[in-house]
Amino acid sequence: MLVNGEHYHSIWLNNDDQVEIIDQTCLPHEFRIVRLESVDAVCHAIQSMQVRGAGLIGVTAGFGVYVAAKNYPQLLSFEQGQEWMEDATAKILATRPTATNLAWAINRQRKNWFGKAPQEALSLIRQEALAIKEEDIQFAKQIGVCGCEKIAAIAQHKNGEPVNILTHCNAGWLAFADYGSALAPIYTAAEAGINLHVWVDETRPRNQGASLTAWELGQQGVAHTLIADNAGGHLMQHGLVDMCLVGADRVTRTGDVANKIGTYLKALAAKDNNIPFYVALPSSTFDFTLTNGVIQIPIEERNGLEVETMCGVPCDEKGNITEMHTKQFRICPSTTKARNYAFDVTPAHLVSGLITERGICLANEQAITTLFADRII
Amino acid sequence: MLVNGEHYHSIWLNNDDQVEIIDQTCLPHEFRIVRLESVDAVCHAIQSMQVRGAGLIGVTAGFGVYVAAKNYPQLLSFEQGQEWMEDATAKILATRPTATNLAWAINRQRKNWFGKAPQEALSLIRQEALAIKEEDIQFAKQIGVCGCEKIAAIAQHKNGEPVNILTHCNAGWLAFADYGSALAPIYTAAEAGINLHVWVDETRPRNQGASLTAWELGQQGVAHTLIADNAGGHLMQHGLVDMCLVGADRVTRTGDVANKIGTYLKALAAKDNNIPFYVALPSSTFDFTLTNGVIQIPIEERNGLEVETMCGVPCDEKGNITEMHTKQFRICPSTTKARNYAFDVTPAHLVSGLITERGICLANEQAITTLFADRII
Repeated sequence: MLVNGEHYHSIWLNNDDQVEIIDQTCLPHEFRIVRLESVDAVCHAIQSMQVRGAGLIGVTAGFGVYVAAKNYPQLLSFEQGQEWMEDATAKILATRPTATNLAWAINRQRKNWFGKAPQEALSLIRQEALAIKEEDIQFAKQIGVCGCEKIAAIAQHKNGEPVNILTHCNAGWLAFADYGSALAPIYTAAEAGINLHVWVDETRPRNQGASLTAWELGQQGVAHTLIADNAGGHLMQHGLVDMCLVGADRVTRTGDVANKIGTYLKALAAKDNNIPFYVALPSSTFDFTLTNGVIQIPIEERNGLEVETMCGVPCDEKGNITEMHTKQFRICPSTTKARNYAFDVTPAHLVSGLITERGICLANEQAITTLFADRII
Repeated sequence: MLVNGEHYHSIWLNNDDQVEIIDQTCLPHEFRIVRLESVDAVCHAIQSMQVRGAGLIGVTAGFGVYVAAKNYPQLLSFEQGQEWMEDATAKILATRPTATNLAWAINRQRKNWFGKAPQEALSLIRQEALAIKEEDIQFAKQIGVCGCEKIAAIAQHKNGEPVNILTHCNAGWLAFADYGSALAPIYTAAEAGINLHVWVDETRPRNQGASLTAWELGQQGVAHTLIADNAGGHLMQHGLVDMCLVGADRVTRTGDVANKIGTYLKALAAKDNNIPFYVALPSSTFDFTLTNGVIQIPIEERNGLEVETMCGVPCDEKGNITEMHTKQFRICPSTTKARNYAFDVTPAHLVSGLITERGICLANEQAITTLFADRII
């Protein structure tokens, strides 16, 4: 998608065949490109959330295995080489526990190095990383097309008034290689000329809504308004939301959805006000082995400092930026400690439908395992 | 309650009979006392939230009328004097629309100046302001005693484990003249030696939880943990909350509760997880004229800048404060605009009970109008 009118992906191989990413911790105020030249750099990028979002974590893991293979010391024996790859992939896998795309990409790469000689492995791994990325882009495009139908259907009853869509966190092109999951249908609909407006949940504590979704939508020229995470229920009570549309980090075969903390609260409010609540995801986000999300999906707990402090750029009392440099601020007493759960699980019965690259299905086991019958082990 | 071990109220008359307050926009990092010497200063204090919270807004309005009367120019005719008071009270009344305590206090003062000569009025108004404050303190104390019973009842089933109470916004002594509404039962229970722990919702956009509730609880030595507003649903799903306890800005005769934006979302989650959801309020917060909160209670919309920017003190990457001076910083792109709804309405059916100075009653018209039969017009 566009950054100052120029087309970007969220991750790429540069002309020297090196992995580069956009450092998302510096957005929206600073646009910085970072090169990932070691497995440590890959792990740091995922853990510190320079890259984040289900899809992009998967794609980065795919490229991470390529970085590991490239850094393979030449003098290693075959066994030592295998051990090297085993260690590197285990390290990448351990960076974040909730998004299933991480394990999915690591597993997908495994066949390319397991039992293979380094030189053969290297080219297979490179190809696979690029294939994972390309598939991510194609799936996101398809999600855009499928989800756009739902937006178009709502638009028909709005008499030209904008369709108001509430989204939580960032499930846009920055969370994937391109386009996104929840934002893909919005971009597709906007391109098709459908009048729409997005309520952007700030998404504390990491503010992916305020810093990434608002930035993305602004760059693509999509009408949007930032709100506190607390505001969604009030908006829904007063008819100001036509549809909720969020992404996912892991979805069970029964349709339970792990997504950014706070998603569950919005789903409850949508249910209470009869507002459709859709979850958009590529099939790589399904965990077909799980049947109960609340009990079975591991929820990452991050450092409480992410709640106790915030990042922003200094501004004057009118909100005008006075210094274009991201700084950290403490917002609570120095003696107060915080807990920081990064995700929650929305039970399937609160979800109106799952928007996938193969179409939209109900959030229940029968619908999911029918649509993805070939993927069930 | 205590500030660095010394007892304070949130508003008082100093030795020179001047109104003083704690500037709550500077907490938790700076403790500043501000003198309110003009009606403009009173209005600014309420509007800018140097003072906030249903009870304290009412008490400040009571003292505000006293400030108006003290500033009465001596040369005014009787009619001009009445007009002076009419204008001043109208100005104070217009500062914030949702909390009903504001109108309640202004109305209560009216009889003291309407048709009265300035000198007679002045002493009556002073007495009334002090009476409103004293009543606020007594009611809060009573709320503490009534609500403590509920906490004690839960404690009996916890086998010595702490009772986990989730609260939203600040309904502590800083929101009243002393003690508070939601926090009063917590202080009473803690004093009685009940083992408890408070989950403190950060409460975006003004962060009254992170900056005021966390500070209050820390000063009184009550165990607490700060969480993002998004986290409550997850905690409730996992059995980590025994009770929700919040304050209110206006409650209808049918039990609908206007409180800080986001309260409704927590009430939905409490219902979904069978967790008791209590609202604590003095009777001055009832609006007995209203029967439908969602439709009838005016919801204040504040400046979007309060969402687009935040306040904090600069810190290092470990969260240690590096400069003890509150600063403002921008957290979204400079082109992004926000909407800022300050309150929402929790429908009565989500409320387990109302904790008042007269005892606990169900959130329905019959229970409320029975308990406060003498107050119904």
